[in-house]
Order: sequence, then C-alpha cells, then structure tokens
Amino acid sequence: MTPQPSHPQAGAAVKAADRAHVFHSWSAQELIDPLAIAGAEGSYFWDYDGKRYLDFTSGLVFANVGYQHPKVVAAIQEQAATLTTFAPAFAVEARSEAARLIARKTPGDLDKIFFTNGGAEAVENATRMARLHTGRPKVLSAYRSYHGATATAINLTGDPRRWPGDTASAGVVHFWAPYLYRSPFHAETEAQECERALTHLADTIAFEGPATIAAIILETIPGTAGIMIPPPGYLEGVRALCDEYGIVFVLDEVMAGFGRTGEWFAADHFGVVPDLMTFAKGVNSGYVPLGGVAISEAVAETFARRPYPGGLTYSGHPLACAAAVATINVMEEEGIVEQAARIGESVLGPALRELAARHPSVGEVRGTGVFWALELVRNKETREPLVPYNASGEANAPMAAFGAAARKHGLWPFINMNRTHVVPPCTITEAEAKEGLAALDEALSVADEHTV
Amino acid sequence: MTPQPSHPQAGAAVKAADRAHVFHSWSAQELIDPLAIAGAEGSYFWDYDGKRYLDFTSGLVFANVGYQHPKVVAAIQEQAATLTTFAPAFAVEARSEAARLIARKTPGDLDKIFFTNGGAEAVENATRMARLHTGRPKVLSAYRSYHGATATAINLTGDPRRWPGDTASAGVVHFWAPYLYRSPFHAETEAQECERALTHLADTIAFEGPATIAAIILETIPGTAGIMIPPPGYLEGVRALCDEYGIVFVLDEVMAGFGRTGEWFAADHFGVVPDLMTFAKGVNSGYVPLGGVAISEAVAETFARRPYPGGLTYSGHPLACAAAVATINVMEEEGIVEQAARIGESVLGPALRELAARHPSVGEVRGTGVFWALELVRNKETREPLVPYNASGEANAPMAAFGAAARKHGLWPFINMNRTHVVPPCTITEAEAKEGLAALDEALSVADEHTV
Ligand SMILES: Cc1ncc(COP(=O)(O)O)c(C=O)c1O
Ligand SMILES: Cc1ncc(COP(=O)(O)O)c(C=O)c1O
Repeated sequence: MTPQPSHPQAGAAVKAADRAHVFHSWSAQELIDPLAIAGAEGSYFWDYDGKRYLDFTSGLVFANVGYQHPKVVAAIQEQAATLTTFAPAFAVEARSEAARLIARKTPGDLDKIFFTNGGAEAVENATRMARLHTGRPKVLSAYRSYHGATATAINLTGDPRRWPGDTASAGVVHFWAPYLYRSPFHAETEAQECERALTHLADTIAFEGPATIAAIILETIPGTAGIMIPPPGYLEGVRALCDEYGIVFVLDEVMAGFGRTGEWFAADHFGVVPDLMTFAKGVNSGYVPLGGVAISEAVAETFARRPYPGGLTYSGHPLACAAAVATINVMEEEGIVEQAARIGESVLGPALRELAARHPSVGEVRGTGVFWALELVRNKETREPLVPYNASGEANAPMAAFGAAARKHGLWPFINMNRTHVVPPCTITEAEAKEGLAALDEALSVADEHTV
Repeated sequence: MTPQPSHPQAGAAVKAADRAHVFHSWSAQELIDPLAIAGAEGSYFWDYDGKRYLDFTSGLVFANVGYQHPKVVAAIQEQAATLTTFAPAFAVEARSEAARLIARKTPGDLDKIFFTNGGAEAVENATRMARLHTGRPKVLSAYRSYHGATATAINLTGDPRRWPGDTASAGVVHFWAPYLYRSPFHAETEAQECERALTHLADTIAFEGPATIAAIILETIPGTAGIMIPPPGYLEGVRALCDEYGIVFVLDEVMAGFGRTGEWFAADHFGVVPDLMTFAKGVNSGYVPLGGVAISEAVAETFARRPYPGGLTYSGHPLACAAAVATINVMEEEGIVEQAARIGESVLGPALRELAARHPSVGEVRGTGVFWALELVRNKETREPLVPYNASGEANAPMAAFGAAARKHGLWPFINMNRTHVVPPCTITEAEAKEGLAALDEALSVADEHTV
C-alpha cells in the first residue's frame, strides 16, 4: 500500500473544479457532494485527508483485479507507447489478441467479438443483431434488471430509471424473473419458483406472439437489481423456450462476467450457452473503457455476406484491448477467478450468513464469489424493506445512516434501494475481507435501530 | 519517423486472429479484408510489410494531434501509473481538470460537462436532456447527417444506415439543411439557399407543432455526410427559431470540434452558441475513448435539484480525461488549432481548388482547416455523382478504383459515397500535405477515367 499523505488543499481544488464543471450521472447536481479521491491501490482508495477506505464496490463493480494492478498498468503504458489508438476497420495486434482471448473464455461457440466502449453499447448492438437475425421486432427483458442508459438499453432496463427517460415505444416487453425472497409467483420453494417463472415466461411469449419476439435478454445473475441467483433449471428452461420459438437468447454479463461470480462467466455455473453475450467492466477491470458482444456462429453467419448496420468510432480501441489482454492473462496467471470463488465460499458466504443470523436488519443473504447482496428489512418476518422502493430524502434515512456508519468505519459500501452489495475486487485477501466484514457488522447495528 | 521494419509473419498472425475473432463495424464479415497495422506516428501509419501510408483520414477523423504525440502518450502513462480508473460519482483530478479546460474552450455559457465514452452516447444524453428540459417529445435532425449508432443516435442520423436498424418510432423528424451544390431548395446563390432552408425549417416546425419539439440537432458543419459549410446566416437563423419557440439547440461537434475546422469549435466560425454541444474524437485525439455534452446554464439548472436520469459506468474516466487534458494543453502550447487554420488556408484550400480545376472528376471542393470534401462526379455540368448514392459492388467500382490508386501512391484516403474527404491530423506539415496532394492528383486521374 502506498502511503497516503494529507493534501487537503489539492483536494479542495479538485472538488471546486468538479462542482463548477462536472455534470454527474443520475444526480441532482446541487444535492450531491462528491468525495475527492487522491489515489487507489488493490482493494483500497483514499481521499486528500489521508482517510483510507476499503472498497466493497470495486468502483461500479468493475475493478475485478483491484486498483492499479502493476501488470495491467504496465501493459497500458506499453500500448500507449506503441499504438495508443487506431481506427476499427484495420487489424491491430491488441484488438486481435483481446478477441482471441475473450473467445477462448466465452462458453460454446461465442467466438466472434464485436467491441464497444461499455455495457450499454454492447446491449444496443446485441439487440440490433437479434432483431436483424430474426427479422422480428420485440425484445423481452426482466423487471429488476439494469442494461444501461442509451435508448434501447434503458428501455430494456427493468428499474425506475427507465421511466423518466426516452420514449418507451422501443419494442420492449418486461416479464418477471425468479426472486424467491419476494416471489412474484407466490412460490415457497426454489423448484416452485423456477417452474412458475418458466410458466409465466412461456405464457408471456404465447400472448405476445412468438413470431414477434427477436430476443430474450437476461442478466445471468441480475446485478444492480439485487444479485438474485436463478434457481436450478431456470436458465436451461429459458434456453429451451428460445430454441422452441427461434428466439435469440442474450445473456448480459456486463457485471457478472470475468470472475465476479467465481467462474469466468456466470453462465458457466449453469452450463447454459446463449446466442449472444454482452460484457464490459471486468473484461479489463475498467482500466480503459471497453465492452462488447460475443456472437455465436449462427448469428455471425447472418452478417457474413450482408453488412451489419452498427458501429462506433472506438470499436476495438487498442489501448482498451491491451488492458483486456493483460487483465485476462493476469487473472489466469494469478488464479484470480479461483480466488474469487474461494473467498466467496470460505470467507464471505459464511461470514455474511453469520451477520444475517445476528442482525435483525438482514432479511436475506445471497451470492457467490465476490458477488453478494444483503437485503435489509424492517422486520424479518414481514420482509418489509428497510426503506420503500426507490426512496429518497427522509424516507431513505435508514439506508443513508447505514452507509454513513460503514464509511465512518473505513468501508465504502455499495448501496441500492434497501440492499447493500458486497462486491469487492476478486483479488481481495482474507484479511481485507475480514476487516470489511467487521465494519459491515458495525454498520448493520445502525440499520438494526430501524427495525421493528 | 520510427523505422518500419518488415515483419510479414507477425502481420499474418494479427490478421488471422482478426479474421477468426473480430466482428467489424458496418461490414459483411466475409467480404472485408482488414489491413494489419504495425505502427503509426504523426501523419503516417505502416503495415507489417513496411509499407507506409500518409493518413488523410486521421483514423475516423479523431487523431487531431496526429498519432503518438509524445506529450499525450506521456500523460496517459502517468495517469495509468497514478489512478487509471475510478467510479464517476467521485471528484477526481483528471476529470475535474478536463471539465475545466473544455468549459474554458466551449462557447458561451456551456460550462458544465457530462462525460461519455464516445459521440453516440453524447448525442443520446443531449437528446434526453433536451426532452426533459422542455417536456416535449420530438427532435428535429437533418438528412445528410451522422450522429452515431445507438438507438436514438441512429434514428437521428440522416443517412441510410438508420434504415435497417432499430424501430424508427423514436420521436425524430428529419428536415433538409443547406447544400447549395445539390440544393434541396433549387437555390442558385448562398443567400437564397440560406433563406429557403430557414423557411423550410420554420415550416417544418409549424406543421410538426412547435410545442411538441424538444430540440433541433445539427452538426455545425456536417462531417460524414459531406462537409457542407452552412451559408452565412443559417445557424444564426436556426438559433433564432429555437429561441422563438423554446426549442433546445444542439450542435453536434463530435467531428468538427477541437481544431478540425481551424477554430476550437466550428461554432466559433459563426458566433453561434447552442444550448447543448456534443463532442468526442478530437477532445483527446481518440487516444482513449471519450465524449461528452457541454451544457448551458439554463439546461443544467433543470437538473440542479431534480436528478438527471442518465449515466454510464465510465463517465469521466480518469485515463480518458488525462488524455484530454494533455491534448488540449498540447494544442494550445503548440498552436495546433492555428496550424490547422493556416494549412487549410494556404496549402490545402488552394491546392484542392487547383486539382478541381484540372480534373474533370472533381465537381466541387469545400472546407476549412483540415476538413475538406471533394465531390467526385461523372460530369461537371450535370453534377451526376461518380457513383450512385449508397452504391456497393460493381456500381461502386469507380470510387473503389480511386481508393486503390490513392493507396498505391501511399495515401490512405477517406471515402464516403461519391466523395473523398481530406481530413488529415491538424498537425500535418506543409511538406506532408504536398506529398498527399500529389498522390491525390494521381488517384483523381483514375477517377477521371470514369467521367463522361
Ligand atoms: C448488467 C449490466 N448491463 C449493462 C450495463 C451498462 O454498462 P455501461 O454503464 O458501461 O454502459 C451495466 C452497468 O452497470 C450492467 O450492470
Ligand atoms: C458528428 C458525429 N456525431 C456522432 C458520432 C458518433 O460518435 P461515436 O462513433 O464515437 O459513437 C460521429 C462519429 O463519426 C460523428 O461524426
């Protein structure tokens, strides 16, 4: 860990320019107070007062190899020295090699890689490919999902952020996916939830008309919406429905992919191969903006002799691709995927379940690898969320108090609605995890005060 | 210039992996043959056989400071060593400084910067801001335009690429903008073209209903569609119509911005201040993916106490922002904007006009700075394009032959439809420009063979 000297004046200047000129995502600009960050390394970052935080967010769940991994930094520096940028119509070593390595990791025959800058553009292009491949207009996506914020991606998203945005006439139909803890199907067991969710989806397909449906898109394990691991059989069932009706099955692994779940891809847990798979974030730990779509042979064939009508200036950006090559190689050499699986199974899982048993505010713990959610509730029996859905201001005070307590104890928590997610880098050590869990323990005691 | 050793085997491997795994933009995957690129510097790049090309494309019109500018490369390397990535909700030095520098360059009160990864996302967010600011659904955009390939951006685009893509019900209405050479208004002078284009736009606004129109978006000088410099008074007239009806005026400077036209922004040529301005490409010469929206005070105020519903994982990516800071500083220190203006006025403009006078295939030359278009025609009198609009295969053979001839003479040309654009880096020297113009002269002789 590098030392964190105190430079409050430098921090004040960074903050002042931010407040004067940076327009922040998802925010009321005058109601936010962004912390100025001086540096980051591994699982930690620190501010200009020298206060250090253990990061249980991995940024926005992208820094899978932690901050400032020396080998990935070196690869970026080398690529910058050689060929930092080049147009997409050419063959470039870093681009070729990134595509080759990604194709080697993706399941099944997802062997052609279309590169984008991030997750939303990946989803946009996967949707377009599916529509053109099938000649059908509609895409089915799940409530409780997040797929990005460009027009198609935000319409696919199944959370309230899609409402105030663009026209909603994007050919998107939402359905409900399995979530046993708050079952949309009034199920009581995983098997029941799975069966009923598949019936619901089959009925939705039937009533929308299978011949109108280009694709079904699902996060393999929904991330932002709550890390709901699908019950055994569900994804296989969706795959079967897609096969039955000639629907393209898209798995969005922007958040779950590249080690997060303790496998290279979350799909590997289920042995399911989609027709298209979107990725971003973990592919290069977010060191340089990169995303993409891994494409099956059948879909690629549609565009073998007919032009694919989509593109972007920075498709396969060499610097971003070099960071991906280094990240994937580092993950392999250092056994980072296995480390994520191990820390999940032997440290995070048991400890989080123990916290849940002890804290009245923890309604459920679920997850795998370094991908865990704690559902905070006012009451374990009723499962009433600690704060109402999409709360803000006073209504959100209990979650705000929980967050403040965690930060006071040196832990930066991921908070969404009434949940906290434990999503540290895959490289987090056992000692770091325990330090974070201790801070979480303290913060949950604050949440407990709001239970009834 | 670094030496360009011959490494055909390495090139073959890069090419083989590309063909096996890279899915390319805008292409029929089996009908393309991407050249493998070994390196680039300044205004040149070279392949693995050691063949060097002078680049009259600046990549996709992004490398405004040329390839591998040592100061921008060094800044990327330093930022990589310090803090290569960090989540958007925080204040980070490179992000703050990039926003401050960009705001200092943008016209008027466009002082808040929302960062994206590229141009399409910038257009998506500008559109969303305009819709929410006005509470109105429609956006007017021009035929003969390109705004990107995500759902909203491709619907706004006024070229055939928008047809095969997503649903077209995106609340977009297209109108015709000035283009005297092929006047949509049968005008014979610039003044007439301007007046008639404004009447056409005013009529379109009236018949769509001003109260339904959130925004008018225009490329200040349309790029991909042909570098049509608007006649004096046109942009001022659009500004006045927007003011009259409370419509948000969006200028898309993704291609024209950051020195390309010989000013920091193309809007500076006209003294027009839009309400929103999109940028990307030149902001950091494409060294790291970056784009954004510069926002006026009035639009920013809408989101002062009400959350802006948009965002992306890599908004204000530190590495991309550090490259922008270095690029802007280098452009200022080295007088690169002035250099673009000078080379346009004293070298490119005169030489291209001289070529036009000599070659029967050149129908018109237009441009400014390092932003020029040559309209190739079968006949100067009839102005019939050298190839039909959106031609491919045999029908496009004359343009293909022109391109092949240019490349044979060591010049990589930008080709779109029946046009070639002369869009080299702003840093191109007089000697380099003359070398390129000589090759262009040869290639135009090939185009001449197809005139009648
Ligand atoms: C599953 C999923 N898909 C898509 C996205 C959008 O990615 P981006 O923010 O890079 O556009 C996200 C971002 O969190 C995501 O989690
Ligand atoms: C004027 C304009 N707007 C938007 C875009 C889209 O930018 P990107 O390819 O980075 O998404 C382009 C790309 O060429 C452009 O020229």
